[in-house]
Amino acid sequence: MKNLFQDTIVAPATIPGTGAISIIRVSGPKAFSITDAVVKLKSGTISAADGYTIHYGDIPRLDTVLVSVFRAPHSYTGEDSVEISTHASAYIVSEAIRLLTKAGARMAEPGEFTKRAFLNGKMDLAQAEAVADVISSTTEASHRVAMNQLRGGFSKELEGLRAELLEMASLLELELDFSEEDIEFADREKLTGLVDGTLKHVEKLAASFRQGNMIKNGIPVAIVGAVNAGKSSLLNALVGEDRAIVSAIKGTTRDTIEETLQIGGLTFRFIDTAGIRESEDQIEKIGIERTFKKISEAEVILGVLDCTLPVAEFEEDLRLILGKTEGSGKSLFVILNKADKLSENDINNFVTLANKVVISTDNKAVIITLSAKTGSGLEELKSALFASQKELLTAESGTLVTNLRHYEALTASAVSLRRTAEALQSGIPTDLVAEDLRAAIASVNLILGKDLGLSPESVLHNIFANHCIGK
Amino acid sequence: MKNLFQDTIVAPATIPGTGAISIIRVSGPKAFSITDAVVKLKSGTISAADGYTIHYGDIPRLDTVLVSVFRAPHSYTGEDSVEISTHASAYIVSEAIRLLTKAGARMAEPGEFTKRAFLNGKMDLAQAEAVADVISSTTEASHRVAMNQLRGGFSKELEGLRAELLEMASLLELELDFSEEDIEFADREKLTGLVDGTLKHVEKLAASFRQGNMIKNGIPVAIVGAVNAGKSSLLNALVGEDRAIVSAIKGTTRDTIEETLQIGGLTFRFIDTAGIRESEDQIEKIGIERTFKKISEAEVILGVLDCTLPVAEFEEDLRLILGKTEGSGKSLFVILNKADKLSENDINNFVTLANKVVISTDNKAVIITLSAKTGSGLEELKSALFASQKELLTAESGTLVTNLRHYEALTASAVSLRRTAEALQSGIPTDLVAEDLRAAIASVNLILGKDLGLSPESVLHNIFANHCIGK
Repeated sequence: MKNLFQDTIVAPATIPGTGAISIIRVSGPKAFSITDAVVKLKSGTISAADGYTIHYGDIPRLDTVLVSVFRAPHSYTGEDSVEISTHASAYIVSEAIRLLTKAGARMAEPGEFTKRAFLNGKMDLAQAEAVADVISSTTEASHRVAMNQLRGGFSKELEGLRAELLEMASLLELELDFSEEDIEFADREKLTGLVDGTLKHVEKLAASFRQGNMIKNGIPVAIVGAVNAGKSSLLNALVGEDRAIVSAIKGTTRDTIEETLQIGGLTFRFIDTAGIRESEDQIEKIGIERTFKKISEAEVILGVLDCTLPVAEFEEDLRLILGKTEGSGKSLFVILNKADKLSENDINNFVTLANKVVISTDNKAVIITLSAKTGSGLEELKSALFASQKELLTAESGTLVTNLRHYEALTASAVSLRRTAEALQSGIPTDLVAEDLRAAIASVNLILGKDLGLSPESVLHNIFANHCIGK
Repeated sequence: MKNLFQDTIVAPATIPGTGAISIIRVSGPKAFSITDAVVKLKSGTISAADGYTIHYGDIPRLDTVLVSVFRAPHSYTGEDSVEISTHASAYIVSEAIRLLTKAGARMAEPGEFTKRAFLNGKMDLAQAEAVADVISSTTEASHRVAMNQLRGGFSKELEGLRAELLEMASLLELELDFSEEDIEFADREKLTGLVDGTLKHVEKLAASFRQGNMIKNGIPVAIVGAVNAGKSSLLNALVGEDRAIVSAIKGTTRDTIEETLQIGGLTFRFIDTAGIRESEDQIEKIGIERTFKKISEAEVILGVLDCTLPVAEFEEDLRLILGKTEGSGKSLFVILNKADKLSENDINNFVTLANKVVISTDNKAVIITLSAKTGSGLEELKSALFASQKELLTAESGTLVTNLRHYEALTASAVSLRRTAEALQSGIPTDLVAEDLRAAIASVNLILGKDLGLSPESVLHNIFANHCIGK
């Protein structure tokens, strides 16, 4: 295999200073000779070593190390590569990398190992992008989707799509070649059918992004209710029980608090909102508007009600929440909070009332009584939340799009295909139809990293700049 | 090699969820068969693989992995071991470990891999302890000392000591055997000489702990001066310039602030103290007493003076500092702060005055003018600090003790040896002398982990409980 790259890159593949072992990766045409310049083996050299073997060596005055040898093309990058395993000391790793760069390697850019794997044909672009997703996956569902993409399941489906599009393009070519003759209309009929079928496929993939995104980034759950209904207490009670697997989401807007919780292999993203009681106050009104926006963006609504309120106020608050979710198709949970302060009889009365109000509006809701304070009813809520979304886990095994870039490319491809279909209908000249079809193909190519056009570097740069160094 | 342990242990050797690669370690008699139960190779099995080879495999539905094979006794622990390299996802690592434990491995205790390496004779106890020190070393000097210990330099010296002590013990045995005859006094003379020589060696090692501890944990520098002299500003200016390599020390007492700074391969531990101006206030007096204690514990004193004060007050503050450092042998720096507010002429006058006062007391000091505010003079101070301690880096290549446990054992050994020497002088019966000598040997054994006596587990538990899991 000829080397696409002349330079040899180096980077830590683990975070040094933690754990027991640190790994340093070296890849490129001089990976072996550079390693030999730094690591002294007991006998022999890395340059003379077989692929897939391990060698005990010494970096003088620094550490004893193990060197794993991977010979091109049988390596992650497709190039000659080594992995040097040292003690997990930040000092050792930085010194070893200093010695390796002194011997001729240069520090890798973020994601450069994976970028080389892509450019050397070890994986396509969608697979390369999945590497970062696999690493950041924290649930079974998100891992499964990312791993399917890494293993090429998504790519295979796209390759199928691409083959269909290329077939249409060749049919159009045929039409162009024989345009003097009378074969146009027969082919147009066949073409229209093909375009429609492919368009449906592309649209289905693009539509899967909603689901894929929920699996990857969490299912948005808006917690809404009046000011003192106990929304924040509920949020704390939900996520506070197991702080270890809870993390605040970075970059959230200052006016809402988001916390994630994993329930049964799914990530739920809880969004606390401002109280929605009617208000004349201008600033409060802005907060309430924001709450309504959060409701429209959420997949699940937890409407929190205070059971210690007079019945009329309780009902007013409930109707306010229901008014905003009516006919939205969202999963709605009506939470009767502060149940610890009521008798069982009173609770039953509130449940009956809530049920009646829900039915009287155009809503479906699960009604749950709980106490954020004592924690009673929390497990029931969690189970019900999971049950309402568990089809995300058991969904038909079809491919899910989780990457915004892929979603945008598929959407663009669908637009081009729709224009192709319209053009075929309206009898527009074949060469113009072909242009729309080519745009549809280009969008699919963009996902796979094929024929990236005039500025492939800028496409790749944006993708790999978000990877970590060492990947 | 027969297996000391019947169970096979597993743990992550890197922190999962970060970097590009995660490593899972498996070690024990069933390491290969357990791995084969979880990882499917393209062809063949791990059980049949040669040592020091790498194998590409698949954990179904989870990840593609690389498995490195180490056959007993050629592994870290001395047992059959594998290292499984996965994508660096916390989910993958926890799932893989779940599968490995399901297949028969158990989660390793903290430090258990290194403990097994010790118990299987791959390293002695002092070397095993050095593993944690090597990993946490952040400077060239601390790394060098820890690596010397890991490579067995310290152990070799202790083995020499131990051989001397065992020779003495056999001489005493000889005396016991022939106690009826007249050989006692000749041997006692030889013995006394041996004991004295060995005692000096042990004392020298124990004394090296002061230096070793400074290299490992940082050189303590007390910043002292009157309340508004600018002590905290100086601390911030020193460490604030390069926050990346500065960290607050955990567990410091609430009444002092400690920050570390690395200068030229040495760690300096700066301790801010309460102002030392004379006071009648009871609480202030307690603070001042604490400051004096910090001075006595520090290796270096930075006496900070405010150059904008009237000359008389300046001199009073200087004399107060000098009075506390007189004859202490500590490195003293007199810092003329706020130099930015003075003319060059005024500065020169203050330097001349400070110099005169220093000479008039029993002190030696480096006088440095600087401005914590503008940063002028800071580099000069750092260079002078490094110069005052650089012999720590270039010290004779003798072994340094850095471990409190070793220091205590050496101190105990010295006490026993001193008692042995006294007993030899005072003509105490041979069997009682032998008891002291045995105690001296036991202390050295404790460091190396030899003949740990009746409760070796408790000794080992305390040592390895401080290691991380996976080590």
